[in-house]
Parts: sequence; C-alpha cells; structure tokens
Amino acid sequence: MDMAARVAEAADLVTVALDELLPRAEGPEQRLTEAMRYAALGPGKRLRTFFAIETGRMFDLDDRPVLRAACALECIQAYSLIHDDLPCMDDDDMRRGRPTVHKAYDEATAVLAGDSLQTMAFEILADPDTHRDGAVRAELVLKLAQASGARGMCGGQMIDMLGVRDDLGAVARMQRLKTGALIAVSFELPLIMAHAGEAERHALMGFAQDIGLAYQIVDDLLDAEGDSEAMGKKVGKDAEQGKANYVTLLGADAARQRLAVLKEQTKAHLDPFGPRADFLRASVDFVLDRRN
Amino acid sequence: MDMAARVAEAADLVTVALDELLPRAEGPEQRLTEAMRYAALGPGKRLRTFFAIETGRMFDLDDRPVLRAACALECIQAYSLIHDDLPCMDDDDMRRGRPTVHKAYDEATAVLAGDSLQTMAFEILADPDTHRDGAVRAELVLKLAQASGARGMCGGQMIDMLGVRDDLGAVARMQRLKTGALIAVSFELPLIMAHAGEAERHALMGFAQDIGLAYQIVDDLLDAEGDSEAMGKKVGKDAEQGKANYVTLLGADAARQRLAVLKEQTKAHLDPFGPRADFLRASVDFVLDRRN
Repeated sequence: MDMAARVAEAADLVTVALDELLPRAEGPEQRLTEAMRYAALGPGKRLRTFFAIETGRMFDLDDRPVLRAACALECIQAYSLIHDDLPCMDDDDMRRGRPTVHKAYDEATAVLAGDSLQTMAFEILADPDTHRDGAVRAELVLKLAQASGARGMCGGQMIDMLGVRDDLGAVARMQRLKTGALIAVSFELPLIMAHAGEAERHALMGFAQDIGLAYQIVDDLLDAEGDSEAMGKKVGKDAEQGKANYVTLLGADAARQRLAVLKEQTKAHLDPFGPRADFLRASVDFVLDRRN
Repeated sequence: MDMAARVAEAADLVTVALDELLPRAEGPEQRLTEAMRYAALGPGKRLRTFFAIETGRMFDLDDRPVLRAACALECIQAYSLIHDDLPCMDDDDMRRGRPTVHKAYDEATAVLAGDSLQTMAFEILADPDTHRDGAVRAELVLKLAQASGARGMCGGQMIDMLGVRDDLGAVARMQRLKTGALIAVSFELPLIMAHAGEAERHALMGFAQDIGLAYQIVDDLLDAEGDSEAMGKKVGKDAEQGKANYVTLLGADAARQRLAVLKEQTKAHLDPFGPRADFLRASVDFVLDRRN
C-alpha cells in the first residue's frame, strides 16, 4: 500500500468510528448534534489519526481501541477549529471548501458544538471500551487535557490572538503550544495504551516534536505562497495582520533550508525502531510535501 | 454550625482549592489564565461544591479528594457561565455584580477561558491525586462528561437557545439537561469515590433530581419577581424573550404550590440515610428559600 492510500485508509477508518460515536441528530437539541456531525465528519487530513494508528501498529495494538483514541483527538481538533473560526477569533467563513460552522449554523450553535465536541473527547477516552485498565484510561484523559488546555493548545491560541511580532523564540513557543502539543499527544496516547518503555516514549516524543515543528513551517510557507483555492481557505493572513511566523521572520528560502534539515532530524528519531517504523519514516516526506 | 455558615465554609474551601489548581497568571498566555481565574475565583454560591462535600461527608470520605471533584464541577459551571454570557448566547454584561468575562476581557479571551476551564475539569479528575483507583478516576471523568455534553448541559443550553414556547414537558426536559444533570453529578461523583451501593446511589440520585427541579422553579420565580440588584443580573428575561418556563406556563401561585410539594418529596428521598443526612436535609429549605 502506498503512503497516500495508507493515510486515506486511516481517515476513512476514523470517520466511520466517529460517525458511530457521535450522538444522532435527533431530539429537541438536534441542531447541536447536527452541527457536531457537520464539523467532525467533514473532510480533513486526519493527520493525528494517522499518527496514532501507525504508532499503535508499531506496538502491535489492535486498531479498534486506538481508533477510539483517534476519535478523541479528532473531536479536540474539530472543536478547536470551530472556535478558532468564530468571528471573535480568526473570523473565517470557509474551511476546507465548506462554510464554517457558525456560517452553516450560527454563532451560538458553533460555540455549543465546539464545547460538546471537547466534552465528547474525554467521554470517549474514559469509557471502558477504550482500554480495560482504568489507570490507562485516566492517563489518556490527563495527557489529552494537558495538551489541549491553558498550558497547551488554548494557551497557544491565546498567544496567537495577542500576536507574536518579532521573536523566533516566541513563535516557537506559540507553535509548541498551539499545534505541537496535540500532534505530540497523538503519538503519546497509543504509547500509553501499549505500556511502552521510557526509551521508546522518549524517541517517539522527539519525533513528534520535530514533525510538529516541520509541519508548522510548511503551514507558514503555504500561508505565504499557497493558493487559496487549493487550500480551501484564505492565505496570506499572517502577513496581512502583521503577525510573525517562521516565514515572515526567516524569509522563505531560509525557512525551506531549515525544513530540509528538520526532515532528516525527524527521521533520525526513528532509528531505534528499525523497520517497525518504516511507515512513520516514509510518512515524513509525504506529510511535509503537501500543497494544502 | 448553622446552615449558612456550613454553605459558606464549603464555598471558601473550594475557592482556596481552585486558587491552588488554576494555572498562575504568567507567561505570554497570561491574559487567558487571568480570565480563567477571574471567572473561577469570583463570587458564587458554590452550591455544587456544597452538595459534593456533604455527600462525601455522609460516606466518611476525606474532604480533600472530594474538594478536587468539587473544583472540577466548579470549572464546568464557570466555563458554562462564561460561554452562556457571550453576545451570541444570552448576551449578559453583568454576572453577580461584576462585568462578565467578555466585558472584563474580550470575546476571544472569553471563548478560550471557557474552553480551558472545561479542559481543566477533566484534567483534575484524571489526576492520581483525586483518587488512587484509576477506574474510579475514569468513571468520574465519564460521568462528568455525560452530564455536561450534548446529552447534558450543552444540549439543554441548545434547547434553551432555540426557545421552548408552550410545553411543560419540554421545559422539564430542558431543565433536566441544562442544569439538572450537573447538579445530579455533584452528588454522583462522591458516590463513585465512596464505592456507594446501588440503593444509596438510587436514593441520592432521586434527591438530586428533585432538588434540581425545585431549584429551577425558584429560579423561574426569581426571574419573574426578583429584584435585579439583589440578583446581580437582569431579571424578567424569559418573559421578555417569549420563552416558556415553569412560571410563565403555570403562573406564580401554582409554581409555588408545586415547589412546596416538591420540597417534602425531596427530603423524603433522604429517609434511608437517617441522621447521616441531617445537613443535606436541612439544606433543602436553605437552598430553596433563596432571594438571589
């Protein structure tokens, strides 16, 4: 199976699993559950799912429980996009070629759909179907919460809203919190489920941090040079708003050089795993050579 | 100790515990953590905390772990109020005599502070400090998530936003979801921590449902007849917006009669507990005879 097919397979698997886990669109609160389904089942790369499933497979975990963890990751991702798109935040009308939730529904429904998707992430992880060991379930919840709260994703979004202007260190910290933490926990949840050892956790966390950073540099390059039609959203927003990112601070050429070095460094973290990590290794180029 | 002092003691205890658990207001995301602290440490009745602590004491639990569960409940309560107050939701400028979070800060910060407080609730429950048994921690997370998500509090808020117009059954369902579920889980979390038996859980859940309903009827009476200064917020909103509630549907006299019957029924649920439930029993009148 080539890499594109393997990524697409993971996306299909998690979409089917989410469809089963999401509340049906019925009852007097139907507008809410419809909006949750619209956001969570819409098109998406499902990159966090791909990372989680490949990590699970490296450790011979069954796909089914890992897919539940992936559903939790996608619920957090979907909630954060709904809220980020709100008029008071990034004010985006389109996301992946479709109206954003507050455009397709309304702002109040968007706030509540985001809130409920966040709740659902923790509900899924805490359910005995996710893992038979309660201590594992609680640790999954704890790590996902740490990655997504005030010292993780939400903190990063706050820093982004306030606007980082001129400091590469601040841009790096913002990235680690806003997007890096959730990417890292995509690897960490299956490691917890597999009771992986300290050395393996450390190596994969290094991989996760580097691929998260590389992914952000690609994002900044696409924001500077991408095509809004291929992206399915507006481009050039950071420059327009005077916000600093890797490309505005380094320039596109230096950012591309840094990306090339980072790619090799990212793959090197996988050396201890040998051929077990072949798919993750091959995914580095695939994930970073994206055009949208 | 009289009831007012006992309720105030619970409020003080949870405020101190929250102050320790909330992230410090520092770092580049400081605006976010400040807003979280503003919302979570502000004045409040802390009724859910009182219920949790009294239930824990009935089962001879230490206060400390129960207080952690209470902190999680208060984080959910605080997050829901921040989001409910947003311009796109109930559009309230004042809450307990202070500017609401989006007024004291801004809308984006309010969205993120609510989001982060929700995350923090689950982070607290999943932490080993809350209970040594991982299965208990996971069950605490599961029950709080079920009470606050699309089939709980958020679903109830959606029904409220859509507006229930003319049906007592629909008003009852909205109340059960919007406020009843979180009140019920305030009793349920300590019951889980205490490994309480089925009969005791059943009796206390009956108490929880009835006191939640009675509390809502009092709320509707205060909205119809209360004084906005004593309440610290606008009153008469339901009637103004053409929304149905117990008082608009039944009239104030019939609502008061129903409340009197419900009070006795609420206390009867505590009969199996004998004198162990004296404080909860005495709290019924105290909680329901409020003026704000």
